[in-house]
Amino acid sequence: MELTTAIEKYRKLQAKLSAYYHAMSLIHYDGVTSAPSATAANRGQTLSVLSEETYLLSTGKETLELLEFLDAHKDELDYVQARSVYLSLKEIKEMQKIPLEEYVAYEELMVQSDDVWHKAKETSDFALFLPYLEKIFEYQKRFARYCAPDVHPYNYCLDKYEDGLTMDRCDEFFAALKSRLVPLIKKIGQKEQIDDSFLYGDFSEADQEKFSLSLMDVIGIDKGHCGLSTTEHPFTTSFGSHHDVRITTNYYRNNFTFSMFSVIHEGGHALYDMGSDDSLAYTNLDGGVSMGIHESQSRFYENLLGRSREFTKYVFPTVCSCFPSMKSCTAEDFYRAVNKVSPSLIRVDADEVTYALHIMVRYELEKRIMSGDLEVKDLPAEWNRLYKEYLGVDVPSDREGVLQDSHWSGGAIGYFPSYALGSAYGAQLLKKMKESVDVEACLKAGDFAPINAWNKENIWKHGRVYTPSQLLERVLGEAFDPFVFTDYLEKKYGEIYGL
Amino acid sequence: MELTTAIEKYRKLQAKLSAYYHAMSLIHYDGVTSAPSATAANRGQTLSVLSEETYLLSTGKETLELLEFLDAHKDELDYVQARSVYLSLKEIKEMQKIPLEEYVAYEELMVQSDDVWHKAKETSDFALFLPYLEKIFEYQKRFARYCAPDVHPYNYCLDKYEDGLTMDRCDEFFAALKSRLVPLIKKIGQKEQIDDSFLYGDFSEADQEKFSLSLMDVIGIDKGHCGLSTTEHPFTTSFGSHHDVRITTNYYRNNFTFSMFSVIHEGGHALYDMGSDDSLAYTNLDGGVSMGIHESQSRFYENLLGRSREFTKYVFPTVCSCFPSMKSCTAEDFYRAVNKVSPSLIRVDADEVTYALHIMVRYELEKRIMSGDLEVKDLPAEWNRLYKEYLGVDVPSDREGVLQDSHWSGGAIGYFPSYALGSAYGAQLLKKMKESVDVEACLKAGDFAPINAWNKENIWKHGRVYTPSQLLERVLGEAFDPFVFTDYLEKKYGEIYGL
Repeated sequence: MELTTAIEKYRKLQAKLSAYYHAMSLIHYDGVTSAPSATAANRGQTLSVLSEETYLLSTGKETLELLEFLDAHKDELDYVQARSVYLSLKEIKEMQKIPLEEYVAYEELMVQSDDVWHKAKETSDFALFLPYLEKIFEYQKRFARYCAPDVHPYNYCLDKYEDGLTMDRCDEFFAALKSRLVPLIKKIGQKEQIDDSFLYGDFSEADQEKFSLSLMDVIGIDKGHCGLSTTEHPFTTSFGSHHDVRITTNYYRNNFTFSMFSVIHEGGHALYDMGSDDSLAYTNLDGGVSMGIHESQSRFYENLLGRSREFTKYVFPTVCSCFPSMKSCTAEDFYRAVNKVSPSLIRVDADEVTYALHIMVRYELEKRIMSGDLEVKDLPAEWNRLYKEYLGVDVPSDREGVLQDSHWSGGAIGYFPSYALGSAYGAQLLKKMKESVDVEACLKAGDFAPINAWNKENIWKHGRVYTPSQLLERVLGEAFDPFVFTDYLEKKYGEIYGL
Repeated sequence: MELTTAIEKYRKLQAKLSAYYHAMSLIHYDGVTSAPSATAANRGQTLSVLSEETYLLSTGKETLELLEFLDAHKDELDYVQARSVYLSLKEIKEMQKIPLEEYVAYEELMVQSDDVWHKAKETSDFALFLPYLEKIFEYQKRFARYCAPDVHPYNYCLDKYEDGLTMDRCDEFFAALKSRLVPLIKKIGQKEQIDDSFLYGDFSEADQEKFSLSLMDVIGIDKGHCGLSTTEHPFTTSFGSHHDVRITTNYYRNNFTFSMFSVIHEGGHALYDMGSDDSLAYTNLDGGVSMGIHESQSRFYENLLGRSREFTKYVFPTVCSCFPSMKSCTAEDFYRAVNKVSPSLIRVDADEVTYALHIMVRYELEKRIMSGDLEVKDLPAEWNRLYKEYLGVDVPSDREGVLQDSHWSGGAIGYFPSYALGSAYGAQLLKKMKESVDVEACLKAGDFAPINAWNKENIWKHGRVYTPSQLLERVLGEAFDPFVFTDYLEKKYGEIYGL
């Protein structure tokens, strides 16, 4: 085979796989946005066919031969091509270790479990979800045994969402955070609490949607390529390539800040996905490199920018025009209210300071289940116990407890630590960005162009060309330091709470 | 090969194809319900891959051998299996005549043209749509040459939507209608016009949606398997099997009857699709047999039932509760208003009597283009001329003229006659149904169960097992007679207008 022929064959293979991923992602998306309630089994039927086709296409003899040929000629490939082939080969070798029947059965389980989770959350009925969650953890353990028999099964999970992440690194990272956050939270707790009562009222879905769409414009999202829908749990997905991205949010009538910050959060994911270099479209290098880097972008927009004094002040007139009752407070009141620190029940509602504690609860529980030290059926009790221990709150129902997140129902075990990691990456990226961009001035003027340009140049356009650590090294020019994040929190909240 | 093995292989092949159709239908649906505006090219990319796969799967050597084996053993198959194999073989032989590149290019064109049609309609810009429409007609002519070189290309088109339909049959059918409708319309025109001014006002989308959802309940649609969305042009689609069906409508603020009757119309399509026997799911016999029979169901629910005095009276209290301004009129006023006969511009808004004239315009134009007697660029002028001639109305813009329907942008040339045919089938079916079901009593009580049970037993459950004419013969026990329809119209509107 000629190398150019092989390269062309490989391009076509990637495009074909992108089409299958497009179809499967859209079927999932339809399931949570507009599908009728009793259609999950029908989607499962289709997904089992498409995932089987994808598996066969990815791991087939012809594909493997093609990849091995390309790998043998890697010195003649450019860096990007070689990286793409390396990743394909790595994924295929892993997929080959999972028997086809199990791969397909797992894909079908995902459809069912997502559907059951929605129902279980609605009725706060963990027992309904339990058999599915048990199977999901069971599959994860089995996949870990197949794919990475020499490492701890939870390390296998962590590595999937953040290349190279291990329990050791997590333990160290969380210990560092804890050493600074626990005293900070304690000090804040001794101060007079911020009044955020004006954030609660009656805000129609139509007004919140209007506001959400305007926020997408402000942060620089091209709505021609990014849509907004409503789901129980906000998320970002893309279809086929970075040219079609969708974000979702949820509108709570009594509080518009949930949709406000979830739209900015998902907007950060969307900007990252949409920022891939066009040459990467329809290849396996399109989109974000890892969930840690992804969350560094989403939480960057949500918190480091979205909850800054400059941005909240800039956006306040729009807030007042969409929600007239807000005129009773000042921009500074609004800034302080959206930064109120208060241990709470719901992760996605949590403030920047206590957020990592929510993650630590999930991390502990996942680690113990994957280690065989905790049974899935005992999750609710342990969840509630840890929330009391870490955050000091009583969990009144599983709906507000162990059933709150969609991640486990989608098989995303090992994902949560990337949120905390991403927050910390983000703080260090902001410090670096400030060396060349006047971020405060941009936020004051509501001008995200220079900020987005910096992110595009340094992070987004690279897609999956570099590993997460390579990417961070290239941008930061220094090692990852979690204390940049805790310094940021101490400074910001010290000022807000007068510590 | 053992016959049982072949049957099992065939079952799997059908299930696989159903999955691809699910994915492709959903991508189309996403395109018109919630996709961002600039993502059509991305969908085209994915659809070109999936349609190529579908083509290869349908026409591949292995598939053909399997089907020929099954066909050779057709005497050992049951009736349903044999019919399924026959249809597959027929479709494959036809598909094989179309070169793969053209099949895929056409599928990509469909995505683009649908997108461009939406934009062209919005801005009333026929020139924008023209190059796409020219290509569509060009492809249709070419496909006709490939697949049915011995028949007139327009007969090839008609037959696709109604097995056995020809220009001769259409000409005869439309002549029959014309002979009775033209005098009827003339007589009505001489009478005092019905006041329907109270149907126009300000009706919020939320209220209309609430009403639409309640109508779905009234006519007996299981919402667990049928969803409702908003699109420019209402339609019905199904995903993978009859277990997941979607209908769409459009809400016009100034008039709720558009969404009311389009929901009942699409609801009729949905009931038909959803009524297939469960054993037909994931086979090529699932769903409706032809567009003529499909429209016989949709227009049956919309007009024969939905615009009856009994039904409008039954639903009137709900109308008043959703739209309080309607309390100013009586149920009888409402019945008369939704049956006002008035030559108009928009097909989907047309009354039962003048509706067929809208179809005849489209039929004439399609026939002339497919015969080479009219150029696509001359469509708007000819459209406007025929509307003046047949309906006596002046067309003020292409938006309200040649661009109003989505059919051509989706490649559906030859589809329109099935609407008129369906209306006429429906009248004869109603006459038959009344021999065993007290339809008036059901409508008075808002009890659709006996009506739906009759349709399920006689039409829906059979899916595509019988040809349209076989099906009609089985149900009616007599030949198709278009004058049953004109008799119905003369009686109903004679009474309404006091002729």
